[in-house]
Amino acid sequence: MRIVRFELKGRSGYGILEGEKISVLWGTPYGGGLENTTGEVMSLSEVTLLAPCEPTKIVALGLNYRDHALEFGHPLPSEPLIFMKPSTAVIGPDEDIVYPAMSRRVDYEAELAVVMGRTCRHVTAEDFRDYVLGYTAINDVTARDLQKKDGQFTRSKSFDTFAPLGPWIETAIPDPDNLMVEAYLNGARRQHSSTRNLVFPVATLVSFISRIMTLWPGDVIATGTPAGVGPMAPGDVVEIRVEGVGTLRNRVVS
Amino acid sequence: MRIVRFELKGRSGYGILEGEKISVLWGTPYGGGLENTTGEVMSLSEVTLLAPCEPTKIVALGLNYRDHALEFGHPLPSEPLIFMKPSTAVIGPDEDIVYPAMSRRVDYEAELAVVMGRTCRHVTAEDFRDYVLGYTAINDVTARDLQKKDGQFTRSKSFDTFAPLGPWIETAIPDPDNLMVEAYLNGARRQHSSTRNLVFPVATLVSFISRIMTLWPGDVIATGTPAGVGPMAPGDVVEIRVEGVGTLRNRVVS
Repeated sequence: MRIVRFELKGRSGYGILEGEKISVLWGTPYGGGLENTTGEVMSLSEVTLLAPCEPTKIVALGLNYRDHALEFGHPLPSEPLIFMKPSTAVIGPDEDIVYPAMSRRVDYEAELAVVMGRTCRHVTAEDFRDYVLGYTAINDVTARDLQKKDGQFTRSKSFDTFAPLGPWIETAIPDPDNLMVEAYLNGARRQHSSTRNLVFPVATLVSFISRIMTLWPGDVIATGTPAGVGPMAPGDVVEIRVEGVGTLRNRVVS
Repeated sequence: MRIVRFELKGRSGYGILEGEKISVLWGTPYGGGLENTTGEVMSLSEVTLLAPCEPTKIVALGLNYRDHALEFGHPLPSEPLIFMKPSTAVIGPDEDIVYPAMSRRVDYEAELAVVMGRTCRHVTAEDFRDYVLGYTAINDVTARDLQKKDGQFTRSKSFDTFAPLGPWIETAIPDPDNLMVEAYLNGARRQHSSTRNLVFPVATLVSFISRIMTLWPGDVIATGTPAGVGPMAPGDVVEIRVEGVGTLRNRVVS
């Protein structure tokens, strides 16, 4: 099932996408909300898609692909290495990534994003599916120069518009640890890997993070990026493609 | 003026504290809300004080006191060094700090907290007062062993209960860069400094952060901690005192 969030004539809401038709939900998709449709049906072409969830936080992974860690000359972490992106960084499909005045080097990072469906705290890896609503794509946009300067990742990852999410949440992913993840810059493929290459798989990430902080419905885990990250410039179009989900497309503006 | 958030018989709200009396507000203290009182008056002794705001994020400062940077052998940063604590870490006065199973070394960190009053984006240092509602105390609780292991600060700073805030927001602080900040562990003073010793003063912090990410009303800036940080154990009582604000007290439990 594909879950979208949309805006139409100043009104926003959640819906279930089938083909080109959106069945509007009364409320959110959490807590049984997927069964409460209003009966109203919209066309995908008439709405604007928004980021498909409204996370209170994005918990993201550093160095969670072997090849990306090698690319930066880092040893593989012995435990998941987490950082956060704020809710204020979230934008939706086709919204613009704004190049900040503070940076001279802004990179794309293609990632599989996990969207939580229930309040999640001290969960075992075996039970992780009970707490996940579905999966989407995220571009973990990063000011590489500031990341190197600060050491801490927060500034470089937290600028407004630095967390494009979407285009929708796919709930029917049989194995999140076997999905192709790609980045395209102006149509040319720059990143290409599979979540098979994650150092820590999705079940481990959900369990690990849930033993640190409570995750709320709509919160997002960005599972890390593979090798091939590189810079973007104003005017560029960047696409993040996740197998089984779809394509998240954004333009960079100054 | 002192702004509190309280709970009484399952109902929570904001109020203005004068002496022992709380004048209840209709809504939040933002956007002119301080002028809308319900007429209802409660006694401080009958309510439970909650964290005085509900931040969507806490933006915190690393190495922002000269003495604390020296204590850890770090050079002073040339720009503010930020990290984040999630909203799920927030607790109020007298709530318990839960010692996580994952850590063997959990430290207190006394800090002045700035509470935003308006949406704040690309603000100049000169204008910072227009965007600040007031000031409170925060204990930037830190799992020091995990901080050292990870390099990134996120895990060590983000456990549930690791952001005690309170006891209230004081709006009448003429100069936030001239306040005593102290930590007491079981009644013994362990940290003692003044915000005069901040590497980057409050106005600079508000402006700098606002050029990275939008701050919402209720969001918090934790301005950094002075020298003297140290470990806590289950059973300990820790107090953070900020001059002109008051005392934030919490117990540590296993």
